[in-house]
Amino acid sequence: MDDERHRGWLERAIALSGEGAGIGAGGPFGCVVVRDGVVVGEGYNRVLVDNDPTAHAEVVAIRRACAALGSNQLPGCVVYTSCEPCPMCLGAIYWARPAAVYYANTHQDAAAIGFDDALIYREIEREPADRSIPFVRLDVPSAGRPFADWAARSGGPRY
Amino acid sequence: MDDERHRGWLERAIALSGEGAGIGAGGPFGCVVVRDGVVVGEGYNRVLVDNDPTAHAEVVAIRRACAALGSNQLPGCVVYTSCEPCPMCLGAIYWARPAAVYYANTHQDAAAIGFDDALIYREIEREPADRSIPFVRLDVPSAGRPFADWAARSGGPRY
Repeated sequence: MDDERHRGWLERAIALSGEGAGIGAGGPFGCVVVRDGVVVGEGYNRVLVDNDPTAHAEVVAIRRACAALGSNQLPGCVVYTSCEPCPMCLGAIYWARPAAVYYANTHQDAAAIGFDDALIYREIEREPADRSIPFVRLDVPSAGRPFADWAARSGGPRY
Repeated sequence: MDDERHRGWLERAIALSGEGAGIGAGGPFGCVVVRDGVVVGEGYNRVLVDNDPTAHAEVVAIRRACAALGSNQLPGCVVYTSCEPCPMCLGAIYWARPAAVYYANTHQDAAAIGFDDALIYREIEREPADRSIPFVRLDVPSAGRPFADWAARSGGPRY
């Protein structure tokens, strides 16, 4: 494994993290998606400038990489992110299915400057209705129909 | 608590789930964000039509609600989603901070038609380097600088 090559891409993600924070786009987080030694998507956190709580660096870079590749999947790609992903970005990564993820700063480093991903990781463990944001299930008779239609139509998942 | 009112909004989210899947936009998932009895953002899964693995119904609806309100936060809003959120969407909800979440179908219902959120929930528990998509930390000397700059500049988090 060529760690120096991976460090080079991480340095680019880190440079993006400083660039985005420097212009007030959002927090100091950057991400680069690489395939076969070529950048296919990159970006920095844009939560503040876009008024979009989902515009974390990883989500921005994944969306751009998928747009560039014309696919909702990233097979054979590597995600380089300046900081260990939060649960939202971890989920986005699993849905996009890259080959691997490399990161530099840890979630403890992020917590030390006020970004407490650990809260969300703890909340995942709790019963839905007991969370700090309560998740309440209600029985709705119509809910099953679109699921049954999907199963009948597609014969399985398509992504 | 007026469950019938909440069920009414869930029915709208469920109708959106069928609408989106029916036109091939993505899986059968819909979401509505409501504040003071008014829809401020809604949508359905657009993963297939947008080539965007992050375009789950909750992410789409949250992004639209935040754009409409000109804010990266959703205080006082309620999220109605046709299905229990996946980890990505749970994370997005925590970053947006609505007051509550209501859902109809469970993650077990989703797994039964091929959407296995449980895999991602299990992966979260594992050591980063041992995951099915390995998360590898590398020490990069430049990584700490943007974090230190952020802490010095903002004196704390701004979102």
